[in-house]
Amino acid sequence: MNYSQAVLSGDRLALARLLTQVENEAPEGRAALIELFPHTGQAHLIGVTGAPGTGKSSLVNQLTLHFRKTQNKRVAIVAVDPSSPFTGGAVLGDRVRMRDLSGDSGVFIRSMATRGSLGGLAQSTANMAQVFDAAGFDIVIIETVGAGQSEVDVARLAHTTLVVEAPGLGDDIQAIKAGILEIADILVVNKADRPGVENTEKSLKSMLELAHPTERVFQHHGQSTRVAAPKQDSSSALMWIPPIQRTVAIEGKGISELAQSITRHVTHLTHSGGWAIRERTRLEVELDSLIREKLVSRFRDEVPQKQYDDILEKVIQRELSPWEAAAMLTYE
Amino acid sequence: MNYSQAVLSGDRLALARLLTQVENEAPEGRAALIELFPHTGQAHLIGVTGAPGTGKSSLVNQLTLHFRKTQNKRVAIVAVDPSSPFTGGAVLGDRVRMRDLSGDSGVFIRSMATRGSLGGLAQSTANMAQVFDAAGFDIVIIETVGAGQSEVDVARLAHTTLVVEAPGLGDDIQAIKAGILEIADILVVNKADRPGVENTEKSLKSMLELAHPTERVFQHHGQSTRVAAPKQDSSSALMWIPPIQRTVAIEGKGISELAQSITRHVTHLTHSGGWAIRERTRLEVELDSLIREKLVSRFRDEVPQKQYDDILEKVIQRELSPWEAAAMLTYE
Repeated sequence: MNYSQAVLSGDRLALARLLTQVENEAPEGRAALIELFPHTGQAHLIGVTGAPGTGKSSLVNQLTLHFRKTQNKRVAIVAVDPSSPFTGGAVLGDRVRMRDLSGDSGVFIRSMATRGSLGGLAQSTANMAQVFDAAGFDIVIIETVGAGQSEVDVARLAHTTLVVEAPGLGDDIQAIKAGILEIADILVVNKADRPGVENTEKSLKSMLELAHPTERVFQHHGQSTRVAAPKQDSSSALMWIPPIQRTVAIEGKGISELAQSITRHVTHLTHSGGWAIRERTRLEVELDSLIREKLVSRFRDEVPQKQYDDILEKVIQRELSPWEAAAMLTYE
Repeated sequence: MNYSQAVLSGDRLALARLLTQVENEAPEGRAALIELFPHTGQAHLIGVTGAPGTGKSSLVNQLTLHFRKTQNKRVAIVAVDPSSPFTGGAVLGDRVRMRDLSGDSGVFIRSMATRGSLGGLAQSTANMAQVFDAAGFDIVIIETVGAGQSEVDVARLAHTTLVVEAPGLGDDIQAIKAGILEIADILVVNKADRPGVENTEKSLKSMLELAHPTERVFQHHGQSTRVAAPKQDSSSALMWIPPIQRTVAIEGKGISELAQSITRHVTHLTHSGGWAIRERTRLEVELDSLIREKLVSRFRDEVPQKQYDDILEKVIQRELSPWEAAAMLTYE
C-alpha cells in the first residue's frame, strides 16, 4: 500500500509521515500529492492571522472544539510558526494544544516552521492543506503569526480569513500598521474582557469604513440601504461586510457566535460565486508557482555554473548592472 | 539632463521623482538604475526591524539625528510600511518625522507601501537603496514593520540588521514567535524605562545562547574564552555576538551607545570579510530575482493564453494536478 492509499483510508501514521515528506519536499511527497489531488476540493479552508499576543492559538483551539462538538466536523490545524528550529516555539504550541484536543481522532494538528525560500512557505502550506483535504478533513484551519506578505499569501489560500486583534497591544495604530485588514472576511477582537476593547473595536470600524467606502452610508446610518447598491437583495448576496466578533477565547466566550459568522460567510461565498473564484485563484497561484519553479530549475540545468559565476563577479565589480547580467544569462 | 545625471549631481527633486518611477517600475526608472549602478557600493545599509509598538520609527529618527550631528553622514531612510494605501499610515509616519528632520538636506525620507507581488517588495527596496547609494548617501536605513519573510529578505539587503524589542508587548514569548533573532546583528531593547525591561533582556539573552551555542561558555562564565575557538584573537575577529543595547529613543537615551555598536559591527564586517560576503549575497539575490522575472515574462509571451486557460480549467475540474499541468505548460 502506498502513502496516498493509506492516507485515503484514514491511516493517521501514514498521514503524519506524508506531511513530513511534503514539508521536506521529498519526491515521495510529490508523487502522493499528485495521486491525492483528485480527492481534494471538499474542505473549507479557514485562515486565522494576527499579531503575537492576540491569543490566536487559544481561539483556534476553541473553534476546533466547537466544530467537533456541535457540527461533528473533522478539523485539521496547520500552525505556521515563524519560530526558528532552535527556539522550539512550534513544539511548545503543540504541547499546550494537546491537553484539550489530544485523543480526538477527528482532530489533527501540524506545526510548520517557516524555513525555506521566499514563496516556499505558501507552497508548503497549500500542499499540507491539500493532504488534509484529501484525507477527508472537513475544515482546515491555517494559523499564521505576525503580519506581512506571508499573511496575504495564506489569505489567498483560504476561503474564509479571520484577522484577530486584542485590546492593549501597544497603540491603536497597531492594526493600521499590520495592514492586513483588507484580507479579513471576519474581524475578531479576542481578549474582549480587557480594558480598551471599545477603542480597539472603534478603530477597526473606522478602518473598515475607509476600506469599504460604498458601505459608508450603511455604517453611519445604521440601516441596510447602501449607496450605489442597485437592489437590496442582490447587493446583500454579493456584498460581504466583514463583521467584528468579540471573543474571550480562554473562557470560550463568543466562540459560538464566531462559528455562526463563519457559517454565514460560507453561505455568502456559495451564493455570490465567491467560493468558485477563491478556488480558481488558489489553484492559479499554485500553478504559477510550480511553473516558476520549473523555469528556474531548467535555467540552472542549462546555464553552466562557471558562466553564471563570471557574470555575477562582473556585477560585484560594478562592470555590469544586474539588469544587463540577467539579460545576458537568459540570452535576451 | 537625464534622471541619473541629475541625481548624481545632487538634485533632490530629480531624486524624489526617480524614486517614484523606481517604485512604480517605470521604464525610465530602470534605465536610470542601470546608469546609476556603477556609482553604488559605497553606502552602509542598515536594516531596522521589529513588531509594531516597539518605537522603531523614533529610534530611526534619533539614530539619524546622531549620525548627522556627530559623524556628518548623509542619511536616507526607506520606511517599508505594510499599511495599505487607504490607511494613510505611511503619510502619518512621514509627518511625524518631518518635525525633527525637515530642512536638513543631508536627510532624505521615503515611505513605501508593501503592495505588489511576492518578492516585489524586497526588489523595490533594493532598488531604492541603490538610488540613495548612488546619490551619495553614506547610510541607508531600511525600516520594516512586523515579522516574517519580508524582514528576512530585508536583512539580506542590509550590512547591519537591528532587531528592536520593547518591554510589555504581550508575553515574553513574543520575541520567540517573531523568529527574527537569527537575522539580528544588534538587538535593541527600546522603551527601556518601562517595567519588565529585565525580563525582555533576559529572554533575549537566553534565546541568543540557544542561537549561538558555541558562545555558551562565554555567556555563562562571563569571560572571553570560548569553546571550539582555536585562537582568541582570530575568533574575536571572525565571530560576532549580537550585543543587546537598551535605548529610550524618545528621550535620546542609549542612542550614542547604539551608534557605537553599529560602528563596531562595520569594523567587524570589514575585518572578517563579512562585508564582501554580504555584498555578494545581496547582488546574487537581486540577479536571481531578475532572472526569474525574465524567465516568467518570456513564458507569458510564448504560451498562448488560451492554452494556459484550458489547462488551468482542467486543474480546477481536478482532471489534472497542478504538477502535471505545470509540466505540460513548460513542455517538460
